[in-house]
Order: sequence, then structure tokens, then C-alpha cells
Amino acid sequence: MTYCVAIRVDAGLVLAADTRTSAAFDDIRTHTKLSTFEYPGERVFALLSAGNLGTTQNVLARIARDADTPGATASLRSAADLFEAADYLGRALVEAQQKANGAAADGVNLEATLIFAGQIGTGATGLFLVYPQGNWIAASPETPFLQSGELKYGKPILDRILRPETSLEDAARCALVSMDAAIRSNLSVGPPIDLALIRDGDLRLSHRLRLGQDSPFYVEFRETWSTELAAAVRGLPPFEWEAPRAPPAP
Amino acid sequence: MTYCVAIRVDAGLVLAADTRTSAAFDDIRTHTKLSTFEYPGERVFALLSAGNLGTTQNVLARIARDADTPGATASLRSAADLFEAADYLGRALVEAQQKANGAAADGVNLEATLIFAGQIGTGATGLFLVYPQGNWIAASPETPFLQSGELKYGKPILDRILRPETSLEDAARCALVSMDAAIRSNLSVGPPIDLALIRDGDLRLSHRLRLGQDSPFYVEFRETWSTELAAAVRGLPPFEWEAPRAPPAP
Repeated sequence: MTYCVAIRVDAGLVLAADTRTSAAFDDIRTHTKLSTFEYPGERVFALLSAGNLGTTQNVLARIARDADTPGATASLRSAADLFEAADYLGRALVEAQQKANGAAADGVNLEATLIFAGQIGTGATGLFLVYPQGNWIAASPETPFLQSGELKYGKPILDRILRPETSLEDAARCALVSMDAAIRSNLSVGPPIDLALIRDGDLRLSHRLRLGQDSPFYVEFRETWSTELAAAVRGLPPFEWEAPRAPPAP
Repeated sequence: MTYCVAIRVDAGLVLAADTRTSAAFDDIRTHTKLSTFEYPGERVFALLSAGNLGTTQNVLARIARDADTPGATASLRSAADLFEAADYLGRALVEAQQKANGAAADGVNLEATLIFAGQIGTGATGLFLVYPQGNWIAASPETPFLQSGELKYGKPILDRILRPETSLEDAARCALVSMDAAIRSNLSVGPPIDLALIRDGDLRLSHRLRLGQDSPFYVEFRETWSTELAAAVRGLPPFEWEAPRAPPAP
């Protein structure tokens, strides 16, 4: 399993993924699921990949090769806009699955899903979920985030908090809370966490972090969240049979 | 689908369930999933039922009949302790499934799951999840809650907050936050919410509430939670590239 989450707010894009891949409970490895393609000042892209690792590595190798091949029929480098880029990724994904499928043992799931975010020139930022079938959906102001993998544990916090006007850093904190919920609840989602922020107009990766379970920031983050959440529960309305709360000191 | 959650803290027991049952997207009804059996001063039980509605109603009818039958071989009324009561419920559940199975159309899932909480005399409170197979597990101090149905959305808040020393009302608030997360994310989990609190030693239902989507308490509860949660996210540690926060005013 995997958990990937990406957010598009007015201020830019946030992407986060765990790094655990597993073929079985006794075959667990660490691989990054976050790939970035930067052409500073021109265009910037980030991809989160979930699903069959053979398929995703195949797609990513193809994408990198196409981008480095002058005159390639299609590539992230040459796409005129993000929709064209998403279509290209969909085709690359389907072809990688078909290629593997020819030789596949029965019952092996070769499907993969990509979350794709980026910005080209003066165009708007964009965020897309590319399905194994090669089609895609885009994030919208009503639902400014996309997820793949073990998505349920970490969804309520995104629903509650994210709005287009949420700051980029608050969106990133929200992504980390969401990721931490999935990590706590599903053994097959595991640290370290990869996190990327792309500020609207930067046309490059604004920040990229890797947070291990014991990294001081992530430890402090988790402890603070526990404290804040307990305070939030205590701040909820009393039941009618409880004594009314004293108003906070002025 | 359904979402049921029950909590056992030192102060007592909390049970909450949604009331939506569905045979299909276009066949949605409201049924209570919370049943209580009170013998004030003697013993008190509460049950949350999930799964096939025919099975759960059959089990509940059987349990009520057994309890009202003097000299019944086994019943909630005569069980010497909660373990005996849980065993009895397991047998009743298996028998109800077997009875329906004889006449069942292929492919209909007749299974059901019970969450069972209660207290008998001077014994400790107890909380159990009774599986369709008739066996059961009990809540423990490490994991002082049990869930059934659409459990993932509402699990992180329980993991983060609940400890044996959590107050009964805070545990109930936590159950409502958990329930609200499932209701927001899964259409087949729906209000009104049934909520029961059994304080240790009361040997009766201490409080029972039904909260509709528009009930003033539940509306205020949701609005306060949104505000508190946003404040909690803002209280998380800043990233290293952000300006340090001003300390709160003394």
C-alpha cells in the first residue's frame, strides 16, 4: 500500500507521499514515490506514483528519457499546457502497463496511478489524478486535493481545513497531519515522508523535505498535534447535563 | 454501510451509531442500531449492530425474548458475567445467520457484527466486539475502543485522544467527532446519530441522545470543531523557512 496526497491552493501546490513499498508483509522496502522535473523559470512538475512499482519505475524512466530527447513526439518538456502533459502521462502509463502485461503472471496487478502537479510558464498551476486507464481528473476549488492509496484515515482533516485561500504552509501542515494519520493506522504506509512545495510563479521546486520518523521537526510536529487536538476536543460544546464552562480569562 | 463506535474508559462506556441502512443507493432507510437492556441497579447492556438488518433484528428479538423468559437456558438477564453474556450473544448471532442461510438467495451476505457493552452488579464495565463467527474480542487499556462498519475515516481521532483516564463526556465528544468524519465522507453513513453513555456504577443508561443533522447541539458541535481544528493546524510548528511565530500574549 501507499498513501499519496497533493493539494492545490491559490498559493501553489503541495505534494506528500510515504516511501514504503511492500510485496508482502515480509518484503517491505523504501522507495521514493515523489519525482520532480524542473526547468527553472520555464516549467516545473512533480509526480506521486502509487501502484505496481515495476510499472511506475518504467513510466518514470520513459518520462525522463522523453524529456531529455530533443524532438520527442511528446514530453513534459514540450507539452504546450498541463492538459496536454496529463494526456501524455496517461498514454505513458497505459503503455507501461500493456508492456508488462504481455509477460505477466496471472493475478499480478500491474496497474499504477499517478498524481501530477505542475505549472508551465504564465499558466495557472494544475493538479491531476491520472488513472490506470489513462484518463484523468483535476482538483477543483470545491475539492482542492487529490489522494491515492490508503486515503480514508487522512481524508477528514483535508475536508475540514483546505480551502483555496489556505496558505501554502498550512496546506503542507495539513498534508503532514493527513499522512501521519495513515502511517499510524496502516502498517503498509510508512516513513520517511517526502514533501514538496511549489509556490505559484516560482517555476521551480520551492521546498523539498524528507521527514524521518525521528527527525526533530516531525517529532515536534506529532507531539504538538496531539496537544492541539486534545485541546480542540476539550473546546467542544458541553452536553446539557454538564456544568457550563467558565469563559476564558480575558 | 454503517458506522458504530464504542469506547470504554475508566469512567464508563460510550456507544454511538449512525442510523442509515441501505439495500442500494436508491433504497435508503433509517433504523436505530443502538439497543439497550436495562435492569436498573442490577445490570445494564447496550448493543450496536452492523451488517444484515434481517440478521440483526432477528438476534435482537431473540435476545429480548430470552431475557423476558423466566428460566431461559441463557440470557442477558441470567448471565453470571460479561464473558458469559458475550458467549451467549455469539451463539445467538451464529444461529440467526444459520437460520436465514437455509433460505438465502446465493450471494446475499447475511453476516452481522455486534458491539456489546455493559456492566453486571459490582463487576467491571466491559466492551466486546462479537464477530459473525460467534467469537469476540474485548477492548483493552491500550486500545480502549471498538469499531464496526466504515471505520477508517473516524479512527485517527480515537487513536490520538482516547486513554483510560479520558473523561466520559470527552470520550463521547470524541465519538461524535469520529462519527461526523464518517458521515461527511461516506454517503451510506448518515444521521441521525444515536449516542449512549453508561457511567461506571450507574447500572442503568446514564444518558441517551439522538442527534439529527439540524439539532442545535450537533450544529454547534460541528461548527466549533471546524474552528478548533483550524486553530490546531495553525498551532503546528512552522517550517524552517517560515518566520518564527510570536509567542502568545501573556
